[in-house]
Amino acid sequence: MTKKGVFITLEGSEGVGKSTNLAFIEQWLKQAGHDPILTREPGGTPMAEEIRALLLQKREELVSEKAELLLMFAARAQHLDQKILPALASGRCLVSDRFTDATYAYQGYARGLNLSWITQLELLVQQAVRPDLTILLDLSVEVAMSRVQRRGETDRFEQEKTEFFQRVRQGYLARAQAEPDRFAIIDASQPLEAVQSDIGHVLADFFLKRASI
Amino acid sequence: MTKKGVFITLEGSEGVGKSTNLAFIEQWLKQAGHDPILTREPGGTPMAEEIRALLLQKREELVSEKAELLLMFAARAQHLDQKILPALASGRCLVSDRFTDATYAYQGYARGLNLSWITQLELLVQQAVRPDLTILLDLSVEVAMSRVQRRGETDRFEQEKTEFFQRVRQGYLARAQAEPDRFAIIDASQPLEAVQSDIGHVLADFFLKRASI
Repeated sequence: MTKKGVFITLEGSEGVGKSTNLAFIEQWLKQAGHDPILTREPGGTPMAEEIRALLLQKREELVSEKAELLLMFAARAQHLDQKILPALASGRCLVSDRFTDATYAYQGYARGLNLSWITQLELLVQQAVRPDLTILLDLSVEVAMSRVQRRGETDRFEQEKTEFFQRVRQGYLARAQAEPDRFAIIDASQPLEAVQSDIGHVLADFFLKRASI
Repeated sequence: MTKKGVFITLEGSEGVGKSTNLAFIEQWLKQAGHDPILTREPGGTPMAEEIRALLLQKREELVSEKAELLLMFAARAQHLDQKILPALASGRCLVSDRFTDATYAYQGYARGLNLSWITQLELLVQQAVRPDLTILLDLSVEVAMSRVQRRGETDRFEQEKTEFFQRVRQGYLARAQAEPDRFAIIDASQPLEAVQSDIGHVLADFFLKRASI
């Protein structure tokens, strides 16, 4: 056992099956003897959840892209300070439904904001903190969107067009390609059992490698 | 008349008389034939006002200093995009009750956040936009605090201690010293008539210089 905790993130756009697989990851970690903390972004603390609500709300007023980006990082700063860093310092395993890769994919690749702004804010807010493992659920936009539409009511992000989600997906894949050691790409078009079997293998490999360091 | 609008900011810590003097500035500008837009920070648009409420709210949860800083700039990005820049582009005179100098004074000098972070965010959010004139109401902290206490109910910022407001004041004065051409320091310990006479002279000088360029 290492003394420092483990920081795992789950990424992917709407409709790829994050909720179902997050529950599976939690169960897997518990069975492996970890006592995982589950959290999400934007959000994870009462104040950060208030920022999330502000971000997701549909509104008349046009939302400035920079305001959206800064709100994401404000929520992240609060989440890190009040929840993620204390958990990791005490050696816990923390799993977050989304983190900074989502900001690169959504605000950077999809909205077209300058990626160097995101890098600047990442450094300001996180300093050297990065996830130890990122599981990316990858799925064609057509299938993902048909799943979201079946769920009914959509938020401000879910109302975006197909091209937007194509860019989100490409953004995630570009991030994974740039950091292959941290990322595990899971083919989310498979039947659920196959997806979860893949996730189980990724987790087993990750902890095996970690134990051998 | 110049084609581009005029951006005036009013600064000073709690209790220096910003509200009263903002009303005086509005009246002065109207009498001088301008059609001023009054606004405030954090806030100025419905979404930015929601961010303001989130910032001022007293809460159990400790607020991360970086989260506070990023929320200030998120509100500012929205305010610039939706209100300040359109007003200036159409040639209007806009007066804001606080702007980025307040972030330097409160989050930088008083809270002790790295000033270079503020400079980075200022550049990211504002690019080259800076106020044309900043009127700083300066008053000893003792007098200012006794006025705030007489007002009753205090918000999260007004609950800070005397030393905090000493640092706010020093921060404002340092900003004014660094940019004497943009700043006018008004001695707010004078009787109201003298304060307003000083503000009137500052405004008259400012528009005279502007007309002669």
